[in-house]
Parts: sequence; structure tokens; C-alpha cells
Amino acid sequence: MIKNTKVNAAILIIGNEILSGRTQDTNTSTIALWLNSIGVKVHEVRVIPDIQSTIIDTVNKLRKSNNYVFTTGGIGPTHDDITAESISKAFSLDYEIHKEAFKILEAYYKLGEFNESRQKMVWMPKNAKLILNPTSGAPGFSIENVFCLPGVPSILKSMLGGLKNQIVGGEPILSHTISLQTVESEIAESLTNVQNKNKDVEIGSYPFFQAGKLGVSIVIRSEDKFKIDVCSSQILDFINKKKIEVVDR
Amino acid sequence: MIKNTKVNAAILIIGNEILSGRTQDTNTSTIALWLNSIGVKVHEVRVIPDIQSTIIDTVNKLRKSNNYVFTTGGIGPTHDDITAESISKAFSLDYEIHKEAFKILEAYYKLGEFNESRQKMVWMPKNAKLILNPTSGAPGFSIENVFCLPGVPSILKSMLGGLKNQIVGGEPILSHTISLQTVESEIAESLTNVQNKNKDVEIGSYPFFQAGKLGVSIVIRSEDKFKIDVCSSQILDFINKKKIEVVDR
Repeated sequence: MIKNTKVNAAILIIGNEILSGRTQDTNTSTIALWLNSIGVKVHEVRVIPDIQSTIIDTVNKLRKSNNYVFTTGGIGPTHDDITAESISKAFSLDYEIHKEAFKILEAYYKLGEFNESRQKMVWMPKNAKLILNPTSGAPGFSIENVFCLPGVPSILKSMLGGLKNQIVGGEPILSHTISLQTVESEIAESLTNVQNKNKDVEIGSYPFFQAGKLGVSIVIRSEDKFKIDVCSSQILDFINKKKIEVVDR
Repeated sequence: MIKNTKVNAAILIIGNEILSGRTQDTNTSTIALWLNSIGVKVHEVRVIPDIQSTIIDTVNKLRKSNNYVFTTGGIGPTHDDITAESISKAFSLDYEIHKEAFKILEAYYKLGEFNESRQKMVWMPKNAKLILNPTSGAPGFSIENVFCLPGVPSILKSMLGGLKNQIVGGEPILSHTISLQTVESEIAESLTNVQNKNKDVEIGSYPFFQAGKLGVSIVIRSEDKFKIDVCSSQILDFINKKKIEVVDR
């Protein structure tokens, strides 16, 4: 188990639609993969409802125990979009019109289309730093170590690239996967031995079904490619001895 | 916003593979939809790593603030499956062989196949109540209000049916969706008015892209069908006036 990671983050999904099961969250995976690639490890994800006091409490907890917090959802123009106001309160900052965001959206919309509802999207915590939105105009924002992104997956994805310079990561977290035509109980003991010999590498074992057959993916994660290679060869060693087939996945 | 719901639950996803982004969690949505149908509302979801102290702390927090807690993951035979031992510690219960689970798996496997690794799956908190597994033998378990399920989605799904009699829900939470060919800012003000007139109904607004067109789904949720109908007709009223098209989705 890797215990001492250098840079960590929490993801906070704000939205009743995820809690009701109506919408399948995909933003966690998008953000986590991107963070891994720049050396930031996600320690925790929380999904909470659109309730102001819950957002305030949760943001205040997470921003103290993580290097970065990423929120998704609740920054649109409707009554259930309460993230920006809640974040303002969490930081005890005024909730006000962000002049730069106003100019961006004024230019983005046709004359007369930048109505009062849309203007709600430029209300932010005082001195928020904008996260530009190349897809649909309305920017996200950050305050200190908290980054607020929209809930719509395609828009969120398009905004991550512009964030890169604002996040200082550690060594990228590397991973190597070995997929096998076997069941976990056939390899459990040998895999435990490998884990015990390589305590600072994270080794996960994940069963899967593919084309009607059972399999197991072993995932080795570390910031150090050499350590991954060592583990990997120890694993290949025992699966060769056991005559277990490696499969593509 | 519905604030006073009768029966609530938290979902606790245990697994490094979700935090790394490698695996897309689908169990949240599966469990939440099922719980809604039996009148239990999910208040919170957390995803945490395979670290014993984190599991213990989180379970102990969630089980006090929710009627039910559902965990997924970490009950298989490998070294990273530490849920049962962690739950034992959270409840200060002995972690021991569950005799009934032992008999089930002894009968499930062919002679000689119920090896030491597989036997790990029958170690549980003392006096755990089994959750039967019609797919792959190895049962989940519950202790008080905490229900521990596997991480593999197809197996988890097959086990929910058997749980129904162990969960006492409130009124089922009903929902009605109206999907529109419009953008949120066109309806935001009118929708706020409807929400203000119906404070105990939860109204969500969710933008979507479909066939290259922008749309908005309005989701109305309540335990009271009449209240949903009232909201619905108020919403249809303003969208008719605005000549906005209702679409299938």
C-alpha cells in the first residue's frame, strides 16, 4: 500500500441526480485519470446533495485534508445550481459578479441573449480565478485549492486541459496491468507473497467477466517504473509456474 | 428541497481501482435506484481506498448518521480484500470463520477446490448475518445497519433481491421527468417560481446533448404523486407559453 503520496486530491460530486441513481457519474474517472497523469493521487470521492450547508461543511473538511479539491456540478443558471454561493460562504467571501466572467459571457452570447438567468453564472466568490470553458462559454473558477467544474461530462473534459498549469503534481503515478484467465483464489497466496516483498507498491486484484469467461486483472501502481518491473516479473514468475494464461483486456 | 426524508442511506465504495479512475463505478447507481424503489433515499456516497483505518473511521461515521450503510468491494480472497476484517474492528467484534458461510462454500466448490484462499471469504465479524450470493457462492454479510456487498457489478446486482426483507424503507420516492428542447437559461426563472411554490418537492434541472442538440431534463421528485402532478402541470404551463418543445429521452 502506498501510504506516503506526495500530492493528493479529493473529488466532490455535487448533485441529487447522482445520489438518486438517475445519472451515472463519469466525472470521477475522468478527473482521476487526468490527475494521475500529472502526479496527483485521488484519496477520496464524495457525492453529496444540493444542500448549501452540506456543501459548505464538506468543502471545508476536504480542503484542509487534501492538496486539491475538485468539485463538479451546480454552476449553471437554474435554482438548483448553488455551488458558487456555497463556496463563497465556505471561504467567508463575498458572492458577487465576476467582471472578467461577465465580459466573457457578454461577448459569447448574441445581443440580448445574455439574460438574467445566464448572468447568474458570473456570480462567484470574490477574487475567484477563472477556469476557461472552450465548449460553452461559462467559466468554472477556483479559490485557493478548490477548483469548481461543471457537471456535464463533455464540458468538464474540455476544461481540464486549461487547468494543468494551476496544479502542481508530484511524480506521475504509473501503472501496469496483467490480465489472467484464472480466478482470484488460484493466485491469492502467491500474490500476497509478492505484495509482502514489495510493500511500497500498490497491487490490486480485480475479477472480471469477459466473453463468458472469468478472469483477473492484477494492477501494479507506483511512481517508480523499476519497482513496477520488479513486481511484474515476480508475478509472471508464479503465473508461469502455475501455467495460467495471460490474456488481452 | 426535500429535507426531512424518512429513511436514508449512505453508500461506501471501497476500492483503489475506482479512485485511480481505472474502473468506472456503476454500483452507486444500481444501489441507489434499488433503494429509491423501496423508499430509501441515498444521502451520501463516499469512495475510499483499501486502507483499514480509513474503512473503520468512515464506516463508524456513516453508520451513526444514516439508517443504512451499503459497502461495496473488498470481500474477495486476495490480500487487498480487507473489508470484513475492517468492519469487525469498526464494531469491535471478533473476526472469525462464519460456520454457515463455510458450509455454503464447501458445498459450492468441487472436492479439493475450497482452498485456503477461498476460505478467507468465510472470515467475517462474529454473528454476521449472511447476504446470499446466487451468482458465485461467496456471501456478503450485514452487521446491524451495515450491509457489505461485493464490488463486481453483476454479482452485486444478483444479491440485492435477497436483501429486500432486511431493509425497511419509507414511501417509495417517485420521480417524473420532462425533457425539453431548450437551454437552462430559457427556463431558469420560471422553474425557480415553480420551485418556490412547491418547496417540499425536489426539482432538478439537467442539461444534456442528444443527436447534436442541446436539451434540458427537468426531474421532479417526491414521495407524493399528487405533488409531482401539481408541479408537472405548472411546468407544462410555462413551457407551453414559451412554445418550448417537449422531447423523448
